Amino acid sequence: MAPTLAPEWQTTDWINTPEPLTLERLRGRVVMLHAFQMLCPGCVAKAIPQAQRVAAVFADAPLTVVGLHTVFEHHDAMTVTSLRAFLHEYRVGFPVGVDAPDPEGGPIPLTMQAYAMQGTPTLVLIDAEGRLRRQAFGAVDDLALGAELQGLLLEVR
Amino acid sequence: MAPTLAPEWQTTDWINTPEPLTLERLRGRVVMLHAFQMLCPGCVAKAIPQAQRVAAVFADAPLTVVGLHTVFEHHDAMTVTSLRAFLHEYRVGFPVGVDAPDPEGGPIPLTMQAYAMQGTPTLVLIDAEGRLRRQAFGAVDDLALGAELQGLLLEVR
Amino acid sequence: MAPTLAPEWQTTDWINTPEPLTLERLRGRVVMLHAFQMLCPGCVAKAIPQAQRVAAVFADAPLTVVGLHTVFEHHDAMTVTSLRAFLHEYRVGFPVGVDAPDPEGGPIPLTMQAYAMQGTPTLVLIDAEGRLRRQAFGAVDDLALGAELQGLLLEVR
Amino acid sequence: MAPTLAPEWQTTDWINTPEPLTLERLRGRVVMLHAFQMLCPGCVAKAIPQAQRVAAVFADAPLTVVGLHTVFEHHDAMTVTSLRAFLHEYRVGFPVGVDAPDPEGGPIPLTMQAYAMQGTPTLVLIDAEGRLRRQAFGAVDDLALGAELQGLLLEVR
Repeated sequence: MAPTLAPEWQTTDWINTPEPLTLERLRGRVVMLHAFQMLCPGCVAKAIPQAQRVAAVFADAPLTVVGLHTVFEHHDAMTVTSLRAFLHEYRVGFPVGVDAPDPEGGPIPLTMQAYAMQGTPTLVLIDAEGRLRRQAFGAVDDLALGAELQGLLLEVR
Repeated sequence: MAPTLAPEWQTTDWINTPEPLTLERLRGRVVMLHAFQMLCPGCVAKAIPQAQRVAAVFADAPLTVVGLHTVFEHHDAMTVTSLRAFLHEYRVGFPVGVDAPDPEGGPIPLTMQAYAMQGTPTLVLIDAEGRLRRQAFGAVDDLALGAELQGLLLEVR
Repeated sequence: MAPTLAPEWQTTDWINTPEPLTLERLRGRVVMLHAFQMLCPGCVAKAIPQAQRVAAVFADAPLTVVGLHTVFEHHDAMTVTSLRAFLHEYRVGFPVGVDAPDPEGGPIPLTMQAYAMQGTPTLVLIDAEGRLRRQAFGAVDDLALGAELQGLLLEVR
Repeated sequence: MAPTLAPEWQTTDWINTPEPLTLERLRGRVVMLHAFQMLCPGCVAKAIPQAQRVAAVFADAPLTVVGLHTVFEHHDAMTVTSLRAFLHEYRVGFPVGVDAPDPEGGPIPLTMQAYAMQGTPTLVLIDAEGRLRRQAFGAVDDLALGAELQGLLLEVR
């Protein structure tokens, strides 16, 4: 099955970037999308530190790490104001978008719906042509992730 | 220098307890007060898990672990609503009080001022007669903490 | 059931001490006996570092940490020569005795037999009057261990 | 500077393999050579577990993980007998060669000399054509290592 284009993100706010990021604007670069919630213990202890390590190890490569705050529970507890303080305290420097709420009032935000994510943390790898190449719910091994990212990077010309 | 009575807490809300806790009502029990902020990385990674371990290891002893949410920065980001979700997600089961804001508008809440805490996490040990026996800012070793708690417990009759 | 006197150790060599240690000579001090094998992964990763922490945290207390090399398998692989190098490389500074081999040729050394140890690591706590107060096979929590040691120390006069 | 052929190993014993491995016989496969000493704490705590993770994560790839016991100190303490027990207890399943001693009596074994290794652990990456592509003394990050291995694997045809 050929990989399909990754759905464009739907966001309401961005932090750590002067202007909103879109998948289209990132064409030509590998994208590691890290979907999280600031009050998700597995995200805080494991997945966010991993995303920070990826951003550091691949700092010179055509790779962009993007966070996505996909709040699907405790909505009043994880506002943009709280998220900003969280990112500041945890020294998260990569761009983070806020997933857009469901206009019909459901708990699952729109990008989370479009990718059919099962929860947080979710890791999404998108190649330089914008195609969805991997999506994983839960913890991912550093060795395997490094290998996958390198594979995608070597496709970039 | 003889230990002095620990200052009574000044709080606005309590979570995980049917009614507010006071030092006076806890007389006869050793009290481990754990002051934290929900967005303080050192609290989340180290001090809160330690407080949970203390609550579990000393479950049968006359010892009460009490959390105190001493917000001195990012006040809008760490509301009681956010704190409730945080405690739920991190499975914190011990009682947690919310330190009362300074009526004069300063950033440091009242109990934090009364104990002259330097930041979070801060650990406070109070003996069964209500006296302040130890106050420590930052990480505390489990072995040393276990020894100190046992020393205070053996004074209880 | 009243605690009984801990069996005296039977050893062939001592490292990190100018002369052999005996329980009798340590009367008046709390003794934490740490039985290990140098090729036991759980000993190396957990129990030996814990014994080192105990030695450091209680350096000023009437407490002696004693290692006991209770080799019950791979005897040719864990000689005294290998043990000396191991202790040097792992910066183990407390005294370590070598448990005496069974004269009848069985694999279990004599002190290990006398204490009916089930394997390594085994932790033994002996009070200042030489009585066996606790014996545990496997990992022991730092908080609980700190509490137990303090309880025994407070009995010393 | 073009990479040069990695020097062939000089060994006296092999464990976990029915016959000795040579670089020449491994041509066509990426080789990760992990040089260690069984009593080197950094090897035991970090580098050997990493080598085990690499062997597991890349189990289906044309990649061979090879251990090399490069004893340069405490020679009497780290015999082949001790090494066998060590590998058994630590569940190391990949092939391990024993570096050949210097016939002139120096402490540094021959393969360690040929690669000019500075100590243990040392990681060596050799491509499918037998060329030395990376040599690192000390800890190596899993993400970066995964990326490098994948880069070498993608060269294999």
